[in-house]
Amino acid sequence: MKAESKETTKAALLKSGRRIIVEKGYNHTGIQEVLQDVGVPKGSFYHFFSSKEDFGLAIINYDADIHARVVEQYLGDTTLSPLSRIRRYFDDKLKEFKSLRYREGCLFGNLSQEMADQNERFRARLQEVLAQWRDRFAHCLQEAQAAGEISSQWNAQELAEYCLNSWEGALLQMKVTKSDKSLKAFIKVTFETVLKP
Amino acid sequence: MKAESKETTKAALLKSGRRIIVEKGYNHTGIQEVLQDVGVPKGSFYHFFSSKEDFGLAIINYDADIHARVVEQYLGDTTLSPLSRIRRYFDDKLKEFKSLRYREGCLFGNLSQEMADQNERFRARLQEVLAQWRDRFAHCLQEAQAAGEISSQWNAQELAEYCLNSWEGALLQMKVTKSDKSLKAFIKVTFETVLKP
Repeated sequence: MKAESKETTKAALLKSGRRIIVEKGYNHTGIQEVLQDVGVPKGSFYHFFSSKEDFGLAIINYDADIHARVVEQYLGDTTLSPLSRIRRYFDDKLKEFKSLRYREGCLFGNLSQEMADQNERFRARLQEVLAQWRDRFAHCLQEAQAAGEISSQWNAQELAEYCLNSWEGALLQMKVTKSDKSLKAFIKVTFETVLKP
Repeated sequence: MKAESKETTKAALLKSGRRIIVEKGYNHTGIQEVLQDVGVPKGSFYHFFSSKEDFGLAIINYDADIHARVVEQYLGDTTLSPLSRIRRYFDDKLKEFKSLRYREGCLFGNLSQEMADQNERFRARLQEVLAQWRDRFAHCLQEAQAAGEISSQWNAQELAEYCLNSWEGALLQMKVTKSDKSLKAFIKVTFETVLKP
């Protein structure tokens, strides 16, 4: 196997695993299903990953990298005001979930729910990933405070924690109702009560 | 088997199944584990439940009944103002999760996350249970609006939806961080910004 095709196979396994796990959960996903989806033999899988657990953690890291880049594209876009960047992020996510017919939700939220009590390595890594997301939002909320777009009475970290947790809860409800009602309620109430001057 | 001991066995199976599923999830829970926990043979299980799916749905109904009674105890307590009842509900839930060392979370939230994309019967039933919870909260929020405790600019249903989804998201984060930080942030921000006169 050439170095390039090695990387391609690894990426294909991560991508396929991510897609299956975000829908079915970690415990309910079989390695065999991923192998069939990608069209590679078992040996190829174990060349890259020592175990299913190792694979699951690699998927979290793979998705965390993509997620961090996307978040940066939005929150680092200085052509918009800090609060407008946050608003655009949620508005676009709503459209994305609509196109997914309100399935999947957030990989980190799903795995947190499923694995936090079951696997300490997953729990610890998910805690880090969610904390990085919160920190990036808190930074943007601080900018919004400095710009006078939202009240400075709040600790930006606490506010970011509140908003992102509430978003995760809205995604959960979206999956159950198969509608954007909960995401719209989140955006409306958040920007009209919590994130106010 | 006497009628009384039949009911006891059924209740023991539901209670044990609930306890195991809230921690491990539905897919990861084996009927065998429940049988061992309760100490009854397989035949006894299939006397009460036609399948694992049937058992899972019965557990949702079992927990929904308990949950509705608890919610009613809080929100129907007219010795307190409507908003104080809601506040006491969340304050006491926080203490309960502390005593559980921030494990488990909400059975309905967990199963929604895990099963909404996987099983239409689970999804539909969970949607009903969560809607009943929201309706009860909306009713109390309407009372709070009538009493002038919170602003009347909001549709009480939308506000209830927002608050309960945000709570579910805070529970998810609680499971990952194994701390009450997210629940405290939820209570603080909700009662100081969203639920205001």
